[in-house]
Amino acid sequence: MRRVLLSHGSGGEETQRLIKELFLKYLSNPILERMEDAAILEVGSKLAFTTDSFTVSPPFFKGGDIGKLAVAGTVNDLAVMGARPLYMSAGFIIEEGFSLEELEKVVKSMGEEARRAGVYIVTGDTKVVPKGQVDKLFINTSGIGEVVYEGLSAHNLQPGDVVIVSGTVGDHGACILAEREGMEFELPLESDCRSLWNMIERVLETGAQIHAMRDATRGGLAAVLNEWAQQSEVEIEVDEESIPVKEAVQGLCELLGFEPTHLANEGMVVFAVAEKDAGKVLETLREHPYGKEAELIGSVTGKEKARVVLKTPYGVKRIMEPPSGELLPRIC
Amino acid sequence: MRRVLLSHGSGGEETQRLIKELFLKYLSNPILERMEDAAILEVGSKLAFTTDSFTVSPPFFKGGDIGKLAVAGTVNDLAVMGARPLYMSAGFIIEEGFSLEELEKVVKSMGEEARRAGVYIVTGDTKVVPKGQVDKLFINTSGIGEVVYEGLSAHNLQPGDVVIVSGTVGDHGACILAEREGMEFELPLESDCRSLWNMIERVLETGAQIHAMRDATRGGLAAVLNEWAQQSEVEIEVDEESIPVKEAVQGLCELLGFEPTHLANEGMVVFAVAEKDAGKVLETLREHPYGKEAELIGSVTGKEKARVVLKTPYGVKRIMEPPSGELLPRIC
Repeated sequence: MRRVLLSHGSGGEETQRLIKELFLKYLSNPILERMEDAAILEVGSKLAFTTDSFTVSPPFFKGGDIGKLAVAGTVNDLAVMGARPLYMSAGFIIEEGFSLEELEKVVKSMGEEARRAGVYIVTGDTKVVPKGQVDKLFINTSGIGEVVYEGLSAHNLQPGDVVIVSGTVGDHGACILAEREGMEFELPLESDCRSLWNMIERVLETGAQIHAMRDATRGGLAAVLNEWAQQSEVEIEVDEESIPVKEAVQGLCELLGFEPTHLANEGMVVFAVAEKDAGKVLETLREHPYGKEAELIGSVTGKEKARVVLKTPYGVKRIMEPPSGELLPRIC
Repeated sequence: MRRVLLSHGSGGEETQRLIKELFLKYLSNPILERMEDAAILEVGSKLAFTTDSFTVSPPFFKGGDIGKLAVAGTVNDLAVMGARPLYMSAGFIIEEGFSLEELEKVVKSMGEEARRAGVYIVTGDTKVVPKGQVDKLFINTSGIGEVVYEGLSAHNLQPGDVVIVSGTVGDHGACILAEREGMEFELPLESDCRSLWNMIERVLETGAQIHAMRDATRGGLAAVLNEWAQQSEVEIEVDEESIPVKEAVQGLCELLGFEPTHLANEGMVVFAVAEKDAGKVLETLREHPYGKEAELIGSVTGKEKARVVLKTPYGVKRIMEPPSGELLPRIC
């Protein structure tokens, strides 16, 4: 009997395979097949619709909690599809015996983040499961947004495009890792968990020609770039030195043997932008509090090979592998 | 420290209290406050949007499985709001080690039910959680539908309305109970799990004046009628003998001390209909394969007291209490 493995949920290769070989096999339709972060619906005005379940452990961490994450995560999936987030659902699965005070903290934090992001949570559901049959609290959020910028797609990268990240890489993953290991660092490790629509809207308003956006969650920057390379059938070259990584994140990765580019972010976007517009995108990002550390990290170099090449500081080039294996379960 | 109890997720009084005292406290907005089965969104054309998490145990049962249930449950929440189901999301939370064959069965069954119901599943999410941190498989589905019949609301019952059920009461709950207890009956106990849009659409097309519809899931018929009585501030009188209950369901209830009206259904709708239209609603239901056992079971008798009165076969009247306490965890 083949079994579901942790790696099937890691957002890497095995997840892709499970989606293609199982979910698409039975659920296929033209909208689902596009496999973007949110589905675009033609219903009067153009809407985006997305869903995400959150199982993060621990549910409270530096910089946020499962509630803030559940709102920001879904808002960001809409935002990177060029959709202004409008409405959200919230489905709670709660372990019998979970503290009501902690639940209240989580729900409060959802309300605050929803207000910040300008979304209404308009429908919900609560299930309580006997002790031991679920760990503490899982939250699903689905979101609907109005598409205000069309044509964004993982299939849409063009040779000559530049790749820009809106901030440092791996912050959320490193924070969760440190919390689980009970590690303390001199420099604080904090999740970047936050809603990005406001920042993304500023960038869209510049009129820059953006071909794709993605928030680099499970699987990190490496997953985004590899999916883009595969789906657009292009080679992407990244300059390793230009990737912004916080000192504390770098330190934790060296200690535990992780790649910062494989660690999840929850408040960072990757852009593929027409080269001529690189300047105004970078400038606009850096003017926003969430984009101060934005960097241009690479470009789409050709149509020959669907792969991501990493240029190291020593002039050597190597393949930036897509993340695979177990990575971190329950990172989001 | 106050704790979350099983009863908070049972769909009875404690669930209502948790929603009012906690979720509405922080997430309140005019749409959420209506507390209907689905939120109505003004976005170009009028849409309905709903969410539900499914944690049913066992995940496979007579008449369906968690996948079929996850589609039918969300389709039905849209349908009872007068909305033609259009699009769904599916979020999976899967225990490490869960059988891929069983997962395939579930997903296949979702695809089949989605086709039957005429909906597209357009976005999804998969999380895998380490062994022992979730029991087998949970599924969240959210749905979007186009509102084709307006004005349906739990606040909308009028004195003189009749109450009609589209089928027998308690089938799903009794089936799950029997499977858990490992009980076998001469007469089969089968879940009524199925998508009801098609049947409901026929009823709406008659032009009958329908004031409210509700699929009687967690908490059963008693929960629906009590919520209606409270929200519309009316007294509802029900003739106990007219409530259709399958023999096997009645037998199981007597054996285990349950009320059939407290047991969940997953393929049965309750209607509040203007009296003049009772005949055509009943007739239309009985012509449909899912409505053969439809019955008129009572009426809205007044505006004085918000309660549900049960007329027993012996002429005695008693209050039909709303379900409370633990009921059956993981029934849906």
